[in-house]
Amino acid sequence: MLTPALTAPSSSSCPAVLPFSHSLRTLSFPLVVARLPTSRRPQFRIQASSSSSSQSRMIEQEIPAAERPPTFLREVDEDSSNSSDSVRARFEKMIREAQDSVCSAIEAADGGAKFKEDVWSRPGGGGGISRVLQDGAVWEKAGVNVSVVYGVMPPEAYRAANPSQNGNIKPGPVPFFAAGISSVLHPKNPFAPTLHFNYRYFETDAPKDAPGAPRQWWFGGGTDLTPAYIFEEDVKHFHQVQKDTCDKFNSDFYPRFKKWCDDYFYIKHRGERRGLGGIFFDDLNAYDQDMLLSFATECANSVIPAYIPIIEKRKDMPFTDKHKAWQQLRRGRYVEFNLVYDRGTTFGLKTGGRIESILVSLPLTARWEYDHQPEEGSEEWKLLDACINPKEWL
Amino acid sequence: MLTPALTAPSSSSCPAVLPFSHSLRTLSFPLVVARLPTSRRPQFRIQASSSSSSQSRMIEQEIPAAERPPTFLREVDEDSSNSSDSVRARFEKMIREAQDSVCSAIEAADGGAKFKEDVWSRPGGGGGISRVLQDGAVWEKAGVNVSVVYGVMPPEAYRAANPSQNGNIKPGPVPFFAAGISSVLHPKNPFAPTLHFNYRYFETDAPKDAPGAPRQWWFGGGTDLTPAYIFEEDVKHFHQVQKDTCDKFNSDFYPRFKKWCDDYFYIKHRGERRGLGGIFFDDLNAYDQDMLLSFATECANSVIPAYIPIIEKRKDMPFTDKHKAWQQLRRGRYVEFNLVYDRGTTFGLKTGGRIESILVSLPLTARWEYDHQPEEGSEEWKLLDACINPKEWL
Repeated sequence: MLTPALTAPSSSSCPAVLPFSHSLRTLSFPLVVARLPTSRRPQFRIQASSSSSSQSRMIEQEIPAAERPPTFLREVDEDSSNSSDSVRARFEKMIREAQDSVCSAIEAADGGAKFKEDVWSRPGGGGGISRVLQDGAVWEKAGVNVSVVYGVMPPEAYRAANPSQNGNIKPGPVPFFAAGISSVLHPKNPFAPTLHFNYRYFETDAPKDAPGAPRQWWFGGGTDLTPAYIFEEDVKHFHQVQKDTCDKFNSDFYPRFKKWCDDYFYIKHRGERRGLGGIFFDDLNAYDQDMLLSFATECANSVIPAYIPIIEKRKDMPFTDKHKAWQQLRRGRYVEFNLVYDRGTTFGLKTGGRIESILVSLPLTARWEYDHQPEEGSEEWKLLDACINPKEWL
Repeated sequence: MLTPALTAPSSSSCPAVLPFSHSLRTLSFPLVVARLPTSRRPQFRIQASSSSSSQSRMIEQEIPAAERPPTFLREVDEDSSNSSDSVRARFEKMIREAQDSVCSAIEAADGGAKFKEDVWSRPGGGGGISRVLQDGAVWEKAGVNVSVVYGVMPPEAYRAANPSQNGNIKPGPVPFFAAGISSVLHPKNPFAPTLHFNYRYFETDAPKDAPGAPRQWWFGGGTDLTPAYIFEEDVKHFHQVQKDTCDKFNSDFYPRFKKWCDDYFYIKHRGERRGLGGIFFDDLNAYDQDMLLSFATECANSVIPAYIPIIEKRKDMPFTDKHKAWQQLRRGRYVEFNLVYDRGTTFGLKTGGRIESILVSLPLTARWEYDHQPEEGSEEWKLLDACINPKEWL
């Protein structure tokens, strides 16, 4: 049951927005969305002298919730037959369990700091749980978010995503469902790597005026590692866990998704990747749906064994100001990738997603030095080289 | 005379790219450009296993130069009659003089640190001088760049910029000339504001296969102030200098360009401006060309009297860690604006401009805290309020 306080008319096609790190086949279509006014910051005041159209505010969309609802699914989803067996329901359950287990593992490894939780919902269904641990003993900033979103895409986007069904169907706006877990974990120690993971599931409904048109669904996601310094045993361990997870399902997955990851996290203007990769996939639907749900579940469950052992080894290593400054420069690259290229982030910023959830992926601190060049052969140079020339770690 | 060492074939229509903070009427057209390989960083190595097309390298484009040439203009520009009187030549002279005088004033106010200079040129003409002062006594990072660029825009862009001449002319690629000065000055003291200014001139040549088609030209630019804390006398002084400069030319300029500035430096996903504005204009050609050249010159010359007195008052004020943290959060907003919205930056990143010149606008350090909200009525809250609700300062 979803029973948030409603402050705007509920609508079964309530416009909404994909949360951070969600991607769509086509990200160029506009979604009608609104930012949440909060009472804690200065409010925009409409003035006679102000005529900036960009300042116009729409209806409220996100509503802070006092507690986590059992599900963010709409009642119509819950009430349908086999509701608890639906992929939507099973995926939501999976990502919420993964959020709990990852947050517990992070808190245990951090040894004191606790996640702060923000729950929010949308009147028409959907919502999310943002959890952030900031300035802990081990992590500078750790965010683990889940979200469930109902939205509407214009028919052009639906047709673009389905070129084979372009024929005589002229659908109206296409409702969609998207759910995902996203996380970025930035440690303090420059020898301890940043981790990002994100797993998401996407479904369209049949267009209302073309009920016979097929539904579409796909999975996306990945887990990738961004160290400032290379410890080869760490990178091998991380990639081995990814490969073992992939190999349980399809021996093609690891090589394919490893390369996809190297290609995706590419900072084109630098000619570098942001880190040392892992796996990444998107638009995945050419396999059995249950198999892919199990695969995404295994991937999410492999985050802790892939990452926490590395953290345990590196979190207390002594370091110098020089090491810290290099980590901060690499954090700058992380910011560049996320703000300029990451599809989920740029899409979220453009369409008005929950800003604090979207930008929790940014590090607490970052640095840009003019024309910084590490000394050839240095540890910093080796990291940069591996970001420019992706390696096979296994 | 321009005599850089040539390492690639010279071409009178050598593709090039607009430097940082240049904008075009239409920024969506692609320019064929290349990144400069440097010998000081790990090089991309072509591997049998690598097939990422995004890694393919084009011809060299920028060439580090040992010294500043007397002009970056092509010889054909220099040799034409009235060359030294041409707007191109006069504008280049103006921005190079402005670079010298601003850098001298910054060095004098900093009291010790010196700018580092990088000169670069392109085989087909054009080039630039990047000057950066980093980790000075007063400024954390100060960049003052000039550049002169020859490029080619596709005919679609030319027609889009000239809707009234859409008739029977079907031109080929349109050569253009662009020159500008850009600067971002980030002080250390959180009570000392960041300054940005940028003045640029743009000209198209007649298309080669349509010699009768009209040339186009326009001016753009502005100067804006980004403090972390409001000292009303500082903001009033800054805006008064802008208004006085504008009023010498046209009483409409200040109100129009002040509003344009508030609208341009808008971080849409935050609902905030990045700072407290100043003046901004673009595509300006509906006035006498000589008048606009004089106006741009006056604007550039007003940077020092508008800014340095504020720095002198604030550079040594005592501050706390809390003040510094707030400055760093506002620096994060600066990064967000520049990487997500600034037309010159995003265009430069996409088309392969000189990255270190483009990103010298980013602060040395920045910070992102999850869901930071200043206390209502605090000094931080007042700054945020003024960024959300732009004020009339005069």
